[in-house]
Amino acid sequence: MAKLKCTAAYDGSRFFGYQVQPGKRTVQREIETALSRIHHGRTIKITASGRTDRGVHAVGQVFHFESPLNIPSVNWTKALNSFLPDDIYIDRTENVPPDFHARFDVKMKEYRYRLLTRPQPDLFRRFYTLHVKSSLDLQKMNEAAGFIIGTHDFSCFCAANTDVKDKVRTVYHLDVHREGEDETVIRIVGSGFLYQMVRIITGTLIAVGMHELQPEALPDIIAGRDRGAAPKTAPARGLTLWRVTY
Amino acid sequence: MAKLKCTAAYDGSRFFGYQVQPGKRTVQREIETALSRIHHGRTIKITASGRTDRGVHAVGQVFHFESPLNIPSVNWTKALNSFLPDDIYIDRTENVPPDFHARFDVKMKEYRYRLLTRPQPDLFRRFYTLHVKSSLDLQKMNEAAGFIIGTHDFSCFCAANTDVKDKVRTVYHLDVHREGEDETVIRIVGSGFLYQMVRIITGTLIAVGMHELQPEALPDIIAGRDRGAAPKTAPARGLTLWRVTY
Repeated sequence: MAKLKCTAAYDGSRFFGYQVQPGKRTVQREIETALSRIHHGRTIKITASGRTDRGVHAVGQVFHFESPLNIPSVNWTKALNSFLPDDIYIDRTENVPPDFHARFDVKMKEYRYRLLTRPQPDLFRRFYTLHVKSSLDLQKMNEAAGFIIGTHDFSCFCAANTDVKDKVRTVYHLDVHREGEDETVIRIVGSGFLYQMVRIITGTLIAVGMHELQPEALPDIIAGRDRGAAPKTAPARGLTLWRVTY
Repeated sequence: MAKLKCTAAYDGSRFFGYQVQPGKRTVQREIETALSRIHHGRTIKITASGRTDRGVHAVGQVFHFESPLNIPSVNWTKALNSFLPDDIYIDRTENVPPDFHARFDVKMKEYRYRLLTRPQPDLFRRFYTLHVKSSLDLQKMNEAAGFIIGTHDFSCFCAANTDVKDKVRTVYHLDVHREGEDETVIRIVGSGFLYQMVRIITGTLIAVGMHELQPEALPDIIAGRDRGAAPKTAPARGLTLWRVTY
């Protein structure tokens, strides 16, 4: 059996998220269907670095699978892309050792959240940005980011419906910068993220940028470990899983 | 009766074109449905500057309609946007004199065609660009454009299935330039365009850019008035109706 690691991009707009759900069009199901066709009907399961929510995009999602076929990795990429729909694209495929695991071996993940910061909306970017009409105070947002960076119990930034016990994670990098004429991008790199953690942090930074919350409030919010103390979760549509590092 | 002129943007990806067709989701139908709701069920017809094909986008389509309601124009914009789906957006509404006509009074139209010119595709731009893998010779394309500019019988650039008799049109401006890292944009301004004329001109310029056709062949192609002599029609997805001038 060969073990393959794929790096994939997808447009989350038309999927019910990553994970297989009965009767729903999901990223995992489309990829497993393509693999099954390549294997003449045989079921091939994939394991990704983690799920992404409905509406979340990826430019660098990673998954692995095992195959009895002996195909050079570059041809795997071509074969998969020829069977996949046009909203999933495999960037590259690599042979990996049998003990590689796309989820357990993750060292870091990077997400980017894209805001459209101008008065009028842009329908061509409606699936890829969150429209924020008011101007944002980037200096304050970066001050708040400074309090989030580090190793903390992030219960305050974790959606209530989760059964994860250990909520300690490390945020290595978090910054807010302008891109192009009218976009503001939040970039976050961490050891791993709790359920909806990136979207709650984004919601928190937006509240700071709109002067609804002071950066200095962050240490107490984090120490309190209470989801109720942090602002609301940002919508999924502006979020992209950018890169997974092993 | 008030006469209103609206400037509208739409994402053509999910419409069966502009014009009303039975049982299909079209731009005209969505706008007329919104107007009907604003008028408590009364039928209100709109007249646009012209149709756009399935998959073609607009940032500056113009249409007019008449209404018995006495509403300030800025409120018309808000009301329409509140009833329209998120892939149509009214930029502004103006009161116009009773003799204004969105189709007959057009002086110039501008279209832009966007090409993604790099080896790998980008699924996030798949509805908004045509992916051209090979590099394009922009200098040759602009040379060819120079032969197209002017007043000509454009039968060679008109799809066969049309009943328009007079095929003389004026192209005021046509150029090809790079935008950003990996896009090439074709900009064309004319007095009006025949059926699929912009897409056939785009297909022709791409053939020139790939050295499949010499710019010097253009005068004979135009003089021959034969659609069969010009290269194939470019797909709709890269095309945007940019501006209509009155």
